[in-house]
Amino acid sequence: MKIQAGCELRFTAEADVPIILMLRPRSGDAQWIVSDQYLIDPVVPVTEFTDSYGNLCQRLVVPAGPFTVSTSTQAETADEIDVAVGAPYTPVQDLPTDVLGFLLASRYCPSDQPAIAKQAAAIVDGLLPGYNQAEAIRKWIHEQITYQYGTSNAQTSALETLENRIGVCRDFTHLGIALCRSLNIPARMVVGYLHELDPMDLHAWFEAFVNGRWYTFDATQAVPKGNRISVAYGRDAADVAFVTQFGPMTLDNMEVWVKPADTDTPT
Amino acid sequence: MKIQAGCELRFTAEADVPIILMLRPRSGDAQWIVSDQYLIDPVVPVTEFTDSYGNLCQRLVVPAGPFTVSTSTQAETADEIDVAVGAPYTPVQDLPTDVLGFLLASRYCPSDQPAIAKQAAAIVDGLLPGYNQAEAIRKWIHEQITYQYGTSNAQTSALETLENRIGVCRDFTHLGIALCRSLNIPARMVVGYLHELDPMDLHAWFEAFVNGRWYTFDATQAVPKGNRISVAYGRDAADVAFVTQFGPMTLDNMEVWVKPADTDTPT
Amino acid sequence: MKIQAGCELRFTAEADVPIILMLRPRSGDAQWIVSDQYLIDPVVPVTEFTDSYGNLCQRLVVPAGPFTVSTSTQAETADEIDVAVGAPYTPVQDLPTDVLGFLLASRYCPSDQPAIAKQAAAIVDGLLPGYNQAEAIRKWIHEQITYQYGTSNAQTSALETLENRIGVCRDFTHLGIALCRSLNIPARMVVGYLHELDPMDLHAWFEAFVNGRWYTFDATQAVPKGNRISVAYGRDAADVAFVTQFGPMTLDNMEVWVKPADTDTPT
Amino acid sequence: MKIQAGCELRFTAEADVPIILMLRPRSGDAQWIVSDQYLIDPVVPVTEFTDSYGNLCQRLVVPAGPFTVSTSTQAETADEIDVAVGAPYTPVQDLPTDVLGFLLASRYCPSDQPAIAKQAAAIVDGLLPGYNQAEAIRKWIHEQITYQYGTSNAQTSALETLENRIGVCRDFTHLGIALCRSLNIPARMVVGYLHELDPMDLHAWFEAFVNGRWYTFDATQAVPKGNRISVAYGRDAADVAFVTQFGPMTLDNMEVWVKPADTDTPT
Repeated sequence: MKIQAGCELRFTAEADVPIILMLRPRSGDAQWIVSDQYLIDPVVPVTEFTDSYGNLCQRLVVPAGPFTVSTSTQAETADEIDVAVGAPYTPVQDLPTDVLGFLLASRYCPSDQPAIAKQAAAIVDGLLPGYNQAEAIRKWIHEQITYQYGTSNAQTSALETLENRIGVCRDFTHLGIALCRSLNIPARMVVGYLHELDPMDLHAWFEAFVNGRWYTFDATQAVPKGNRISVAYGRDAADVAFVTQFGPMTLDNMEVWVKPADTDTPT
Repeated sequence: MKIQAGCELRFTAEADVPIILMLRPRSGDAQWIVSDQYLIDPVVPVTEFTDSYGNLCQRLVVPAGPFTVSTSTQAETADEIDVAVGAPYTPVQDLPTDVLGFLLASRYCPSDQPAIAKQAAAIVDGLLPGYNQAEAIRKWIHEQITYQYGTSNAQTSALETLENRIGVCRDFTHLGIALCRSLNIPARMVVGYLHELDPMDLHAWFEAFVNGRWYTFDATQAVPKGNRISVAYGRDAADVAFVTQFGPMTLDNMEVWVKPADTDTPT
Repeated sequence: MKIQAGCELRFTAEADVPIILMLRPRSGDAQWIVSDQYLIDPVVPVTEFTDSYGNLCQRLVVPAGPFTVSTSTQAETADEIDVAVGAPYTPVQDLPTDVLGFLLASRYCPSDQPAIAKQAAAIVDGLLPGYNQAEAIRKWIHEQITYQYGTSNAQTSALETLENRIGVCRDFTHLGIALCRSLNIPARMVVGYLHELDPMDLHAWFEAFVNGRWYTFDATQAVPKGNRISVAYGRDAADVAFVTQFGPMTLDNMEVWVKPADTDTPT
Repeated sequence: MKIQAGCELRFTAEADVPIILMLRPRSGDAQWIVSDQYLIDPVVPVTEFTDSYGNLCQRLVVPAGPFTVSTSTQAETADEIDVAVGAPYTPVQDLPTDVLGFLLASRYCPSDQPAIAKQAAAIVDGLLPGYNQAEAIRKWIHEQITYQYGTSNAQTSALETLENRIGVCRDFTHLGIALCRSLNIPARMVVGYLHELDPMDLHAWFEAFVNGRWYTFDATQAVPKGNRISVAYGRDAADVAFVTQFGPMTLDNMEVWVKPADTDTPT
């Protein structure tokens, strides 16, 4: 269906603060960007570039004082995520070159830690390698990790989430990624919008590469829904922060909304 | 100023025809894309990718029958192009790596042809190397080449334009590029929108790299104006066609419009 | 088999001349670089970069006076080129993104010229789309175009070769590429070494993309042989010159050699 | 001076094991690769690709049994590393786009950890931002962290090294990088060869980006020496492992050697 999503972020900068934003979604396999609006106030020079993952990033210097970013995107999205029970594992030697980096340990997904590998082995014991393993990991996280705000922070890694058994969508995602990678299944983080997420917020989930393509997995949901707008992809949250700031700036308010597109007024 | 630009292209395909479109502008040095809308009818799957020049390209298969693409973009643009009289030539050894390819001869800009080099030498005789040379080339083309529709076609190269002394914006651009390159000044083609172009159409101009950056040159105008929205960059028209089609499809109608943005309704 | 190839280029520069060399082969699908040696005399600073086709390029400024480049490469190569009679055409919509650019017209391969398309259609009349078409083009060139040194120059395009029916390996290659592209078969130029080429020289051939991969075609030979070392890939000779110079420099002497590797002394 | 360096790695694989090697150095700012040899035994197909940092990587599947890789490189290197006392900090907004990723936290360099930032602030207190800060960090690590084999492992992060005050070149490097990044100085890991390293081994150090370019820092040495051959660059050890293996394979023996090049026999 066609959905409309957006956010408004209100900041106060104490001084001139360079920032990098990732708030411009791109058309991709499961989404077509019908329209996109991106407003900043005050208007300052912005440079947009593509990072090594293909994300559109916006660089600017926020002047001291209040600063607002508001975006609105209308996209055709798939009503259901693709599910592929039984889809086979893609051997490492057959992976496309640009997928290989998603096998490596990263800041919040220390897939090299023995405890991660041990847990992954336990979860997938006896399963067919590939999609079924990634789905078992997703389901295990959904059932074993408690979803609760305020229990983790910007330093929390998948290893800590595994130990503490509590976190939010970001932590669920990191744990899913780390467990997949320990099985040599490439996995990456996606941040974006999800229709009917409750409570509404910017969301995160993961994708695993099996049978020659990426599949969507969302450990925060009993049955993952479609109608997602992906905004950025990366190894983990270090790569795909909506805002990366290099100086003192506070986020005073954030609003996020997703709704069916009004068919009469396209944007 | 903030301008609003767009186009509507109506095609009829005789069969399923794969095409590549370049109609999604990106934010860049002299433009900030405030909003962008991209509609196709009928809706079919589209894959968007970034080409080697950084352009956003849309791949799809047009089904047999009528097909319409309509886009609308609102952008903050500079009222004036940057002018830098006296800005020095950038020696080849100091050029950024990704600029080097714009020194090479290309399909419509055969800068390796002796007649091109000879003409360039005559135009810039005695001038300070750099901006002044590119500007002299631009001015010479404006004064010496007659602008007239229907005098060139999709095969016309800069060499033919130099011989025939007649053409349209595409030909003026190719000639400017070829002459600059023959002087070892990197030059590239830009296609996009220009406010107050008369008659209104999709437009083309060129950029030359001097003093460490790209500058805008438009040989179709006595005094080149600002308020441009660049849509794609490349070596020449082969790289930056709005539509590249691989099968029988006719363009039945095209409308292009550029106007000051309505400040009340942002998209 | 393991072959050893190299060249020695002797130049005289009249002044400081910036140049770009492409003389460092990379390991690829059909070749493994066992060893590589690259000497310049006098020794000056060199920057090596990767161009948009993945070629390793060397930038430097040749000082006024004599300058020598000598390279030697030992590589494992395939004794036979891959032949795939009947391999099907890859539809444009299924081509990998990075192959699309090889469908476009380029400086020396003006595949948009009606005369090129007309000739291609005549050659492939009745053939199965794909490999057989590319092979028919290769064979037609071999039989219809006379191989003769001194009949073409650095400005000669495939259209002229088609008209004049004479040229060298570079011209044969450009014509093969242009004819393939006019049929929407991606084609690219390869420059490198060929064992037992007679007379020995730096060589050029083309590759066409059918059935999901690149295949080798060499119109200069009745039956194309294997044991090739590819040094660079590109749209045409503008992209893959062994030496691109930006100033007055003469090539005084060039020697090229290819032989079976001496198994005792690996480099 | 011209140095000759290489390594021989002897493995035993228990089954077919896909691996990625990074053992082919590239010519760069401070090194020119005169010759390079890369032997594997048994000979199996290898694919070489360039990763997102520009490193040449070799993919292959090691068959069960013994496997040997031996490389040898001769390079012109600088006798001294560049030192730039007083070179100023490059503000984030002025950094090249491709440098921005080296500001982010990574697996072994968790620069987002408050303990890292606190330590960095203490080390650079009162210093001029830029080169002097990175050098103070390097010197502090050299003086405060004990160099001792066997005290860390493949999971050890910079935070642990900061706490335990002990480690090897890899840990020194990770700590230097993490401390620099916490000050918004881009920093990256380099692995390669260092002439006269004692005991000889594959080595690791870091580079920090100040005053518009990368500078070399080596915390393992009282006075860092030149004559280095860089083999790979990345965010941390996850990106630049000489061998990344995806299955059971043991390293039975490793030899590394660096010596002045024999001027008579170039390879």
